[in-house]
Amino acid sequence: MDELNKVLAKIDADLESNLERLFAFLRIPSISTDPAYKDHCRVAADHVADALGAIGFTTSVRRTPGHPVVVANSANGGGGRQVLFYGHYDVQPVDPLDLWDTPPFEPRVAALSDGRKIIVARGACDDKGQVMTFIEACRAFKAVTGALPLGIKVVIEGEEECGSKNLPALIEASAAELRADIALVCDTNMWNAATPAITTSLRGLVYDEVTIHAADRDLHSGLFGGAAQNPIRVLTKILAAIHDDNGRITIPGFYDEVRELPPDIRRQWQALGLTAEAFLGQVGLKLPAGERDRLLIEQLSSRPTCDVNGIFGGYTGEGSKTVIPAAASAKVSFRLVGDQDPEKIRERFRAFVRARLPADCTAEFISHAGAPAIALDWGMPALGAARRALTEEWGREAALIGSGASIPIVADFKRMLGMDTLLIGFGLDDDRIHSPNEKYDLTSFHKGTRSWARILAALAG
Amino acid sequence: MDELNKVLAKIDADLESNLERLFAFLRIPSISTDPAYKDHCRVAADHVADALGAIGFTTSVRRTPGHPVVVANSANGGGGRQVLFYGHYDVQPVDPLDLWDTPPFEPRVAALSDGRKIIVARGACDDKGQVMTFIEACRAFKAVTGALPLGIKVVIEGEEECGSKNLPALIEASAAELRADIALVCDTNMWNAATPAITTSLRGLVYDEVTIHAADRDLHSGLFGGAAQNPIRVLTKILAAIHDDNGRITIPGFYDEVRELPPDIRRQWQALGLTAEAFLGQVGLKLPAGERDRLLIEQLSSRPTCDVNGIFGGYTGEGSKTVIPAAASAKVSFRLVGDQDPEKIRERFRAFVRARLPADCTAEFISHAGAPAIALDWGMPALGAARRALTEEWGREAALIGSGASIPIVADFKRMLGMDTLLIGFGLDDDRIHSPNEKYDLTSFHKGTRSWARILAALAG
Repeated sequence: MDELNKVLAKIDADLESNLERLFAFLRIPSISTDPAYKDHCRVAADHVADALGAIGFTTSVRRTPGHPVVVANSANGGGGRQVLFYGHYDVQPVDPLDLWDTPPFEPRVAALSDGRKIIVARGACDDKGQVMTFIEACRAFKAVTGALPLGIKVVIEGEEECGSKNLPALIEASAAELRADIALVCDTNMWNAATPAITTSLRGLVYDEVTIHAADRDLHSGLFGGAAQNPIRVLTKILAAIHDDNGRITIPGFYDEVRELPPDIRRQWQALGLTAEAFLGQVGLKLPAGERDRLLIEQLSSRPTCDVNGIFGGYTGEGSKTVIPAAASAKVSFRLVGDQDPEKIRERFRAFVRARLPADCTAEFISHAGAPAIALDWGMPALGAARRALTEEWGREAALIGSGASIPIVADFKRMLGMDTLLIGFGLDDDRIHSPNEKYDLTSFHKGTRSWARILAALAG
Repeated sequence: MDELNKVLAKIDADLESNLERLFAFLRIPSISTDPAYKDHCRVAADHVADALGAIGFTTSVRRTPGHPVVVANSANGGGGRQVLFYGHYDVQPVDPLDLWDTPPFEPRVAALSDGRKIIVARGACDDKGQVMTFIEACRAFKAVTGALPLGIKVVIEGEEECGSKNLPALIEASAAELRADIALVCDTNMWNAATPAITTSLRGLVYDEVTIHAADRDLHSGLFGGAAQNPIRVLTKILAAIHDDNGRITIPGFYDEVRELPPDIRRQWQALGLTAEAFLGQVGLKLPAGERDRLLIEQLSSRPTCDVNGIFGGYTGEGSKTVIPAAASAKVSFRLVGDQDPEKIRERFRAFVRARLPADCTAEFISHAGAPAIALDWGMPALGAARRALTEEWGREAALIGSGASIPIVADFKRMLGMDTLLIGFGLDDDRIHSPNEKYDLTSFHKGTRSWARILAALAG
């Protein structure tokens, strides 16, 4: 414990230089979706490998058909405990650039009106800031004790923001090398600025694209209107039928594999007091749009959803064009929970569409991503240890929460390496990840680093 | 009558040279929507003015803020009958160019598998071929008799394919100069290849654009899905509610100003025997999608409609993006009949949308075009005269039909010049106007020219 206190004191003393290293990382415009930034992604990978190498990790930058993956190993502890830390060095695109108050790749510390100090840059939170909390915790351990408290493997990829297409193959091929007792991921949020959280469940995802075809060409709406089937009309009828007036999804069998929340967990969640005003108010909304008989926190994390993520058909330019299009399309995704199987849900959705097609129309489908939901056993010892460590650092009981989002890598770790994952992050809901003026609270960075030091000690112990 | 026969004989004898003049016109790529073709539009206007000047018209090319308008006057007959002929020299864009069998501005005569000879080029039918039927009829009259049978004014515009934005102001400013007893427009179709037609009614149009706004930014569908209102969901619910299961429009008051077809007209239309197989079959459809209790021909011409002409929101690129967009939009148009007032229908549509908005959403509207429906008095003498002339030329009773499309200039002539319009054209349903491989039957061109000679003689008499 005395040793851990020294490590924590070292983190406090080094805050300025830790921040400098984060800034150097943030200055690299490693936008993975835009091929123009390919070289910058390579530079970011090298940067991370150098950072890990500087504190004693054996590192390598693995080539993939896309951006490279950094793999590192602390190599200490032959038979001791091992953790695998995952993060990503790539960032989201920055447009619309004119909405940024300062250039996205010129990081700075600023202050919010309530006095909170924040780090502003693309990637400040997602995920460079979060990754650096872990690396700086390792650095402090190494500096103070000359070693890490347990064996640490690290995977930092560069394609998280564009679908992690090449990561599963690398994990599968390197399974023996990467397997550990548990995986740690720092890419999630705290419950709020005062309350740390461990995300113990993640919703799954299945994403489908449907195109309704009617006439074999675009038609003039004057000459054909009234008689020709309009695929936009067909599509809107189908999409409108997915939710009933109570926000419940009407696709037959959709809820079959959904489990009810145990009463005690529901009570805990209720006690967190998430209000529509607080959660939806931040984005200009007031009224929860999900199932009417559910808590807002359930709608967001333990209940499955359907959203149309994109819709397009006919004339979409400026002004007007009197066309009845030949086709109309929608991108439709479902967030999954419990034992909902992505491919079964995809098939049920497609059957729902086909059942509503007029005889003149056909439907064509494109399969996009699918991943099942994830849920940790709440009694898992590592979870308890990490929770206690977080509670000590923040002086407030760490919340065990569910996330509405999917993190496919967690499913991959489970499936390919047989590992559970602790999702512990220090982001906040107002961090504007993926948006202009992304930020990370200085407190998130500082106490996040301290949190990892405590967690590593706890997991080693 | 002997004189008319000589004019008709002249048209027969001159078919080759008439065709040559049409080809010269078709070679000018006068695409009005594309600024790159601005000079070609000017050339086409000069070409038309020269053609009219060569047969004795006083001509001028009037500048507008867009493409010029050709105005011509035969100047004969101080107190005699006067007609105003309207057409347009501009054509639609030609993409996708790779679907053309031969270059769109290299006109040629080809033969269909059923032996019909056709003229293939962009504008062959719409509207250069049709315009030239009228001009060649005038040329024959002039050549045979030294004069035109009645006073003829001509307006040939260059912006019909991009909304005729500048024409109304020119007509209004030149009202005294342009006013005539009746207007003639050659931009419509025959009933079929054997049966000529006069279009005596046109549906009106009102075109609106609606954008539904929800959150103040795009949201991550994992973090917010299930609780945040999705504007695509709201939009599809609203659009899906416009038509009931019988194809009837549910907007309150929508049918208030629609008149029922008189039983005798309905019987005449029924006798025309329009089948879904013939009409919809040509575009790959089978089932009329309009009001179930109406004839197909009613759905197409005497009944009002609603079509979504475009819809867009969220992610519409390749692949997937898990976004809940901040907004979603649709372009919605209504074809109007009877006394439906475009602005009243617009307001009823907007009220329908507003009544269905969740409290969290707002709707924003953009007004596009609006024009009321047009209907001629079936007892009008000029209509009877023209009908008889067409019947003589084609050996089959000319059909009096309604068109589903709107031709705003007809409303402008009525409102600004107090003139009715006879819409007489020789296009066919398979002419592929606005599409690759546009064509005009050689018979349409030849007998169309002869038809105009007969009509001019009949209107003069």
